[in-house]
Amino acid sequence: MNYRFILKTLGHLLLIEAILMFLPLGVSIYKNENIIPFVNTIVIILIFGSILSLIKIKNKSYFAKEGLMITTLSWISLSLFGALPFYFSGYFPTYIDAFFETVSGFTTTGSTILKNIEVLPYGLLFWRSFTHWIGGMGILVFAIAILPLSNENSMHMIKAEVPGPFTSKLVPKLKDTAKWLYGIYLLLTILEILLLLLGGMPLFDSIVTSFATAGTGGFAIKNSSIAFYNSTYIDYVISIFMILFGINFNIFFLIIMKKFKQAISNEEMKAYFGIIITSTILITLNILSICNNIFEAFRLSFFQVSSIITTTGFATTNFDLWPQFSKIILLFLMFCGACGGSTGGGIKVSRIVIALKKVIKDFITVIHPNTIKAVRLDKKVVNEKTINDVGYYLVLYFLIIIFATLIVSLDNFDFETTLTSVITCISNVGPGFSIVGPIGNFADFSGLSKLVLSIVMLFGRLELYPMLLLFYPLTYIKNKRKQV
Amino acid sequence: MNYRFILKTLGHLLLIEAILMFLPLGVSIYKNENIIPFVNTIVIILIFGSILSLIKIKNKSYFAKEGLMITTLSWISLSLFGALPFYFSGYFPTYIDAFFETVSGFTTTGSTILKNIEVLPYGLLFWRSFTHWIGGMGILVFAIAILPLSNENSMHMIKAEVPGPFTSKLVPKLKDTAKWLYGIYLLLTILEILLLLLGGMPLFDSIVTSFATAGTGGFAIKNSSIAFYNSTYIDYVISIFMILFGINFNIFFLIIMKKFKQAISNEEMKAYFGIIITSTILITLNILSICNNIFEAFRLSFFQVSSIITTTGFATTNFDLWPQFSKIILLFLMFCGACGGSTGGGIKVSRIVIALKKVIKDFITVIHPNTIKAVRLDKKVVNEKTINDVGYYLVLYFLIIIFATLIVSLDNFDFETTLTSVITCISNVGPGFSIVGPIGNFADFSGLSKLVLSIVMLFGRLELYPMLLLFYPLTYIKNKRKQV
Repeated sequence: MNYRFILKTLGHLLLIEAILMFLPLGVSIYKNENIIPFVNTIVIILIFGSILSLIKIKNKSYFAKEGLMITTLSWISLSLFGALPFYFSGYFPTYIDAFFETVSGFTTTGSTILKNIEVLPYGLLFWRSFTHWIGGMGILVFAIAILPLSNENSMHMIKAEVPGPFTSKLVPKLKDTAKWLYGIYLLLTILEILLLLLGGMPLFDSIVTSFATAGTGGFAIKNSSIAFYNSTYIDYVISIFMILFGINFNIFFLIIMKKFKQAISNEEMKAYFGIIITSTILITLNILSICNNIFEAFRLSFFQVSSIITTTGFATTNFDLWPQFSKIILLFLMFCGACGGSTGGGIKVSRIVIALKKVIKDFITVIHPNTIKAVRLDKKVVNEKTINDVGYYLVLYFLIIIFATLIVSLDNFDFETTLTSVITCISNVGPGFSIVGPIGNFADFSGLSKLVLSIVMLFGRLELYPMLLLFYPLTYIKNKRKQV
Repeated sequence: MNYRFILKTLGHLLLIEAILMFLPLGVSIYKNENIIPFVNTIVIILIFGSILSLIKIKNKSYFAKEGLMITTLSWISLSLFGALPFYFSGYFPTYIDAFFETVSGFTTTGSTILKNIEVLPYGLLFWRSFTHWIGGMGILVFAIAILPLSNENSMHMIKAEVPGPFTSKLVPKLKDTAKWLYGIYLLLTILEILLLLLGGMPLFDSIVTSFATAGTGGFAIKNSSIAFYNSTYIDYVISIFMILFGINFNIFFLIIMKKFKQAISNEEMKAYFGIIITSTILITLNILSICNNIFEAFRLSFFQVSSIITTTGFATTNFDLWPQFSKIILLFLMFCGACGGSTGGGIKVSRIVIALKKVIKDFITVIHPNTIKAVRLDKKVVNEKTINDVGYYLVLYFLIIIFATLIVSLDNFDFETTLTSVITCISNVGPGFSIVGPIGNFADFSGLSKLVLSIVMLFGRLELYPMLLLFYPLTYIKNKRKQV
């Protein structure tokens, strides 16, 4: 493995993180808050980042393995250093808590260990929400857009960082693709900020809420999340933007290129809208009896469905108190997640669609052995390898849930808390049910559980395989043997 | 589709059921109980069975589709008619309740809707446990052993009825294989009856308990299940027999053929023992603080682990009150299940082993793209199709759980009850947690939920695909089109 190249790249990424941290520092200065946590962190990151950046590399060649390793290590180290302002501030009881919150931010999960969010100074609140925005599109995509990093193998990093079973370049050059992605991302974020301002939301709240929506993260700056604003307009603006950020960004690109027909015919998006509409209707009917009227029921249902399927995790009501039927729908939306190529987490709608089509296809083959039927998506045949990879992606998803649940269960919380805390973390949603419900938090978990849940969030955000690399002994051993 | 052949075969199977029902009738006569429920049922079944048996068939040829259809329909109709004695007896509030109990019996699930089991007359208790014994090895296997049914396509029925990803004939002739399977089954059952008698258990209890163990069913005739006998000896005898009935019956055949080396080297069995030992140790340590001593902790742990992994469902303690860690282990054992080719349910250990090996293999391929590594089981290469079928088997398993949970959640029970009732039914275990825990029952579910859970039990017992056939419209439609 080309370790020198990996470390040097990490150095570059840390320097970017240090630069990005000047934004929350600016907020702290403007609001006359304690700037020491940020100043100290920036100095530390600059030192580490500079040392690593100065490493001389013998060859610039790298392959899939190095690409995955860079992705994994960069997410871990950015979280390790990104947690420092939280830790230095004193608002977080232990470093593990600060790390959990930062991983939750970068992975756009939005699970918090804070019992009272509103006591945090503006600078920290800004950094907390900003990690969502950085993590949503991915720091490597960002780095590829601005640094002379990319070669023909950079695609492995993009693949590891951009969710979904298919990853395609928008334009022939990877660097330009990355720029397009960030351009669309920035544009939509600004649009949301403006619309929230129009609804009377304060400027600071509009910015950080838009960061959290764009990254489908879900960190709110109020203890009661979006319910705090108590505004139908704001609820609908955020609902719609959550849904937008859950769509494959290729579709926005197609729209910009005026390829409307191609954009609208996207099968994954149609399934995604279908699931949202069906779930919203079912839940509206189910919660009707506990709401004042059908408009309230629809508004609450639509917001919560949008929030959970896009794996954002904002809340406008304590859905933990909803009837079991509605909760089970939300649980499945947590698994499902948004579209591939979006900022959302979960298994992704396209994988679900492929899996369902494969099951039906297999079935027809049993009844009519001589029929040859292929699984198609967007009228194109999906090759066998992709289909089987999707199947085993789901299997691996469940295996990781099993292992993590087993460790978290040592904390001896109730069944619902134990299971949904892991599911919400691997799918990067944020809240689960019971103790980790929308008005709850992760404060009372043990340090071990917080660490495991942090790792699970990274597994979810990087779509399993890159993280597995880190836990697999042969990754290191075989290489040494070759060097002998 | 060769409907005439299907119906005629169903007729034969119903006649077998009528004959088998003479056993509980005998018990009722001997115990001086009301024999009307059995007499009426036998008359009804004989009428239907005779009519169907008299159908003239034009050709005796049948294929995979017919084989699967026979399997599915026979399980459903045997349950529909088998429920009649329960219904006629008046001990079951509705026919749906009687049907649920019978499906639970035949599929060797062991979930009950009875709040008080001990009030039932001996004849009904006998029939209830006897359905476990019949369903364990399968009525079709039985039919093939005694009727002139088998042709080169009977293997499809055996495949549909005998669990696991691989189905191999013990001996070249299918009829002889079926005879061998039932011979071993009968022998082990008699052995358990004798050992339980030695432990001081009454004869009737020994017989029905052995039926429930052999089929890995779990219907007990006491409200407190096996805890009633309060005997270390009985606990260990039942534990060991549950484990034996969870082993692939091929292995017993190999032992009889004195191929000890081949028998012992079976990889699935080794993994199965590995899981049992690990789980038993972990739970023993976890429940140590709530037990009197380590011997009690081990005894309880070993019994419950054996009961759940083999999907029997007997209990010697209310494990619903155990710490969450132990409960989560039990939950995963419910999914896991026993070995293929045994009477146990669940996903089957061999599928888990193949899935794990596939995940590791994929992973090595990412790190070392030039390494060609195959998934092997028992030193033989597992072909790609089997591996991918295993992956999608797991996917389908979860899809069915999702749909069923959604419907059951309409009853608005707590999260733990809702989810584990479906899991315990699809894996044919019996008890779940909370309301459906080892001292609970399924009485308070709605009729709709009871029906859905019955279907889920059949899905689990027949390993998904045969049941899916029934719900798939093309099964019927395409055929008609061809006849035009």
